[in-house]
Amino acid sequence: MYTFATPLDRALRTVPDNCAVGCEGRRASYAEFARRCRKLAGALYGLGLKRGDRVGVVSLNSDRYLELYLTVPAAGLVLVPVNSRLAPAEMQAILTDAGVSVVFTDADYPGAAETARVLSLPGDYEDLLDRAPERALGEGVAEDDVAVLFYTSGTTGVAKGAIHTHRSLVSSGLHFMATWPFDSQTRWLVASPMFHTGGTIAMLATVWAGGTHVIMPGFRPDLALDLIEAEAITHTLLVPTMLAAAVTEQEARPRDIGSLRYLSHGASPITTETLRRAHAAFPGAELLHVYGTTETTPIATLGRHEELIIGTPLDRSCGQPAVGVEIRIVDKAGQEVPAGRVGEIIIRSPSVMAGYWNKPIETREAIVDGWYRSGDLGYQDQHGYLFLVDRAKDMIVSGGENIYSTEVENALASHPSVAEAAVFGVPDERWGEAVFAIVVTRLGVTQDELMLHCRDHIAGFKVPKTIELRTDPLPKSAAGKVLKRELREPHWAGRPAKVAGS
Amino acid sequence: MYTFATPLDRALRTVPDNCAVGCEGRRASYAEFARRCRKLAGALYGLGLKRGDRVGVVSLNSDRYLELYLTVPAAGLVLVPVNSRLAPAEMQAILTDAGVSVVFTDADYPGAAETARVLSLPGDYEDLLDRAPERALGEGVAEDDVAVLFYTSGTTGVAKGAIHTHRSLVSSGLHFMATWPFDSQTRWLVASPMFHTGGTIAMLATVWAGGTHVIMPGFRPDLALDLIEAEAITHTLLVPTMLAAAVTEQEARPRDIGSLRYLSHGASPITTETLRRAHAAFPGAELLHVYGTTETTPIATLGRHEELIIGTPLDRSCGQPAVGVEIRIVDKAGQEVPAGRVGEIIIRSPSVMAGYWNKPIETREAIVDGWYRSGDLGYQDQHGYLFLVDRAKDMIVSGGENIYSTEVENALASHPSVAEAAVFGVPDERWGEAVFAIVVTRLGVTQDELMLHCRDHIAGFKVPKTIELRTDPLPKSAAGKVLKRELREPHWAGRPAKVAGS
Repeated sequence: MYTFATPLDRALRTVPDNCAVGCEGRRASYAEFARRCRKLAGALYGLGLKRGDRVGVVSLNSDRYLELYLTVPAAGLVLVPVNSRLAPAEMQAILTDAGVSVVFTDADYPGAAETARVLSLPGDYEDLLDRAPERALGEGVAEDDVAVLFYTSGTTGVAKGAIHTHRSLVSSGLHFMATWPFDSQTRWLVASPMFHTGGTIAMLATVWAGGTHVIMPGFRPDLALDLIEAEAITHTLLVPTMLAAAVTEQEARPRDIGSLRYLSHGASPITTETLRRAHAAFPGAELLHVYGTTETTPIATLGRHEELIIGTPLDRSCGQPAVGVEIRIVDKAGQEVPAGRVGEIIIRSPSVMAGYWNKPIETREAIVDGWYRSGDLGYQDQHGYLFLVDRAKDMIVSGGENIYSTEVENALASHPSVAEAAVFGVPDERWGEAVFAIVVTRLGVTQDELMLHCRDHIAGFKVPKTIELRTDPLPKSAAGKVLKRELREPHWAGRPAKVAGS
Repeated sequence: MYTFATPLDRALRTVPDNCAVGCEGRRASYAEFARRCRKLAGALYGLGLKRGDRVGVVSLNSDRYLELYLTVPAAGLVLVPVNSRLAPAEMQAILTDAGVSVVFTDADYPGAAETARVLSLPGDYEDLLDRAPERALGEGVAEDDVAVLFYTSGTTGVAKGAIHTHRSLVSSGLHFMATWPFDSQTRWLVASPMFHTGGTIAMLATVWAGGTHVIMPGFRPDLALDLIEAEAITHTLLVPTMLAAAVTEQEARPRDIGSLRYLSHGASPITTETLRRAHAAFPGAELLHVYGTTETTPIATLGRHEELIIGTPLDRSCGQPAVGVEIRIVDKAGQEVPAGRVGEIIIRSPSVMAGYWNKPIETREAIVDGWYRSGDLGYQDQHGYLFLVDRAKDMIVSGGENIYSTEVENALASHPSVAEAAVFGVPDERWGEAVFAIVVTRLGVTQDELMLHCRDHIAGFKVPKTIELRTDPLPKSAAGKVLKRELREPHWAGRPAKVAGS
């Protein structure tokens, strides 16, 4: 039986003097860090919280966030990390849905104060710890207890709270450790937001191994490079936009990044060009592609040693099923399809969420016979390499043909003047849906030129009927994903949702 | 949810063409190996077996044994591996206790034929596979189902069947993978008997990663070295006697052993001298000390990079708690003792057995509040390094003093003329117990000389009252452990067991 207390207990007993965490000049050994966690547990119960109560956090990354991430579940409570960039109404909706009674915040968030008792980071937090008695971690906590509610990032409309138990998150940590080595010399740089599963992907693994967290409050490429050099970072995860920015920084002002052996990326697609530049900028690092979702904690597939396959068709894959995770590609009837055939990606693992908080209907739709239905379309090759094709709901059905929006986006993106492209279906009297593109251009280029370019790369029926040119960047979620929903919505105003339940 | 089917399914889907197993010139890819396993599953049900029925194996190691090890549990049945060197009555007792209905044997074992339907390896086995339909693996199997009954090796008297579920063995595989890297390039040499947990320690890990098993039917140092060279073995586990023999062979006729990166040892204590020679003979290999028992599958503690601590006090340790395993040292009241203090070693992990088959009383004594009471005495240093002191039942209480038999044995073993030493308590009217030693000598040495030698190394009350000199080796279990029970028994004939329940 494992809980969130298990990794920390091992680190405390095996490497009490190792640095557990460094952040903005503060550092704590595991002995000190564990003592603070025990005091935090005491403080939480001192606030009158009861087993299973929800505790929110709205904050930039910090060492205190790490304390909350490990301690709230280990104390038998439920952590609710909330995206600090949400609008007040969105934040309020999440805190209300989760039933959060106490929320720790590093700034004034109007949406938080409306619904829960707000305690400030670091002020109130440090006061509480000063006064609190220590409380043992993990006592009476069961592995199937709820540990964390991760709210989905919002590309799908109303945020849903993915219920993660101790076991699902601890399993995910073991799956990562079964792939990459973690030991007491590991130094993990936290660069992605900790309110996403991507930001917390390695926390239990790093602590279990007795390694060190180095935490950036928010991502800045220059600071990331400085930390890799100064802190001898060995492992990290960056989303592709961060990775591209870090590469540019390293090209411009090279640091000694020889310590970086394990460089993962995920959360959104990456281009071959970024991979190539990343390998050149960080030549000693293994590149690992992580595919998964908030519902899968997030590891579903892992593409190891991507640096060895740059420029081959495999570099478009997001890897093979992680150890501990089963992947199937199924048709609409739920039957497995052969290699090479596109279908919905479904996922089974102890690391998959238990369901959506307070959403039994969505839960029943999302988890069928123990398999999580991702809503992503893709195919696997003969060796289980997974290729994403599209979100099921982003697939365009025009004149009876299935058109994958990403395929059209890739065709547009291959034009040198295109910085970004988003493709979706809009209502069309004749074809049902028509292909519509919004393109952010780098240099002067016309709609007609882009359409001609597309015609060279994809079938005529896939070429956008309309291309809208823009110069401002496309709207994106905190994880860097284009918010296609926002772009699509005005075209569908007043019409029923395109695909129910996805 | 993981079962024995999960690792094989991943290997089949990701590396179908990789070599799954090589043994005595036979080889099978994962595609072929998985097909044979599915046919074996079909064959087992063709024999009339029902879910949960027990299937025995009495055999030397082989590729077919690996098929049975993975398939019997994956098909929803229970595997019972039996030590092929047991006397007929012992074998019969185990097969009867387990309720084995079908047993696969590679030779004529009188004890097997008395109790179960005997099918020969390879004759009957290959016939069955030829005729059988394929049957899917893992269907309807739950992770808490019983997978394997490993019978304890017999140093404690009546053999008990440690119940291992799918989850306990799969967890152990993950714990190993969280320590050492396993991937599709891993080539694991199976040198220890597969009826012990030591022989199967890496099977699920190696298969999960899509690596290759190279299987020796029985250990021979020359053959082991030949295989390491010819098969480019990367990982293995040897018990200390095997390791010492392999080192001697490598010193005498060096092979190219550069592929061997991960060399583990376990099952019995190892001397500093053997470690030193092993490091010299296999300079590119990380040495890993594995401590555990049949009840813990077997990984409890792991001592990594032992080659870096040879000659320091740490080389007497068996390592730190493995990732996924919790260790405590407790006093007789079950309270944890401070670092440095000797107590009983207790162990908690999903990898610990569910109990003993058909033995509710022994199960209740062995697992208390979720912790397995190992019966081993030891202490931990400030960094969780575990030092074994003795088996609880091998501790001698003489005149109110606790004397650890291993301490006396170490004192004797440090004399250049001593090849082996076993120390235990014998009944004594005055002191309760008296210290008794049996020593196998290499060169002429007298009792008195050895007693004087002991007096230089240990306190007077620990020096044996009697030293019996022998020239033949001490009796040992199949795992290479000295059978102290056999040596002690004649002295205690007709008296009650020394320590109840241990």
